[in-house]
Amino acid sequence: MSSIFSKIVKGDLPSYKIAESDKFFAFLDIDPMAKGHVLVVPKEETDYIFDLSDELLAEMMVYSKKVAKAISNAIPCQRVGVMVVGLEVPHAHIHLIPINKESDMNLSNPGLSLEKEEFERIADAIATEFAKL
Amino acid sequence: MSSIFSKIVKGDLPSYKIAESDKFFAFLDIDPMAKGHVLVVPKEETDYIFDLSDELLAEMMVYSKKVAKAISNAIPCQRVGVMVVGLEVPHAHIHLIPINKESDMNLSNPGLSLEKEEFERIADAIATEFAKL
Repeated sequence: MSSIFSKIVKGDLPSYKIAESDKFFAFLDIDPMAKGHVLVVPKEETDYIFDLSDELLAEMMVYSKKVAKAISNAIPCQRVGVMVVGLEVPHAHIHLIPINKESDMNLSNPGLSLEKEEFERIADAIATEFAKL
Repeated sequence: MSSIFSKIVKGDLPSYKIAESDKFFAFLDIDPMAKGHVLVVPKEETDYIFDLSDELLAEMMVYSKKVAKAISNAIPCQRVGVMVVGLEVPHAHIHLIPINKESDMNLSNPGLSLEKEEFERIADAIATEFAKL
């Protein structure tokens, strides 16, 4: 059975898309810890990130660096934090989270509630910055 | 001025060392979120992880994968989680944290208090597994 992320990659489920390559897909987390919280997933459906081949893992991190640059160009922040938990959805994904202080990455924070229009505005802003890189 | 991590890499400050290559150094976090919580740092002193060159960032992630394998071979866990916050010490570092549930990576959890002997035992166990890989 396809993971929820594979369905998003294929377009069978909607997402606020940021960018896509032949190997990776980036889109907004719908339960964001901050405005501009993005998930990067490999199109290849692998559960645990450290089961990815060295080559794909390396490329995924470099792709995430580019997405992080687009995030910080679109969303004022000190840094883009990185998190991989991997117990929620059995499809490897890197969280990229704009942060201004350490507690912005606290998993016990309630997720932000955003309207569809705001998700669209944020996704457009980051996607536009990504396209410039 | 050298960062605290550069001092650890040079041996000017003590650490519970796990592994070392020409480019990277891995050692136990002394304020661990879980037993086996390891930090991987590049020897090159760069503040923000996404300011590393693509090549070094890619190599750091592949090196972290190998350290994560050693951690999970030494410490029973579901996964090794990954976190980069980067606001505490101005020297890029990847946290590798053995986890069994999402809340194990909650930054608001108090750090574990471990005795020196236990840090040494954990570091030895992970270093031994690393040497086998």
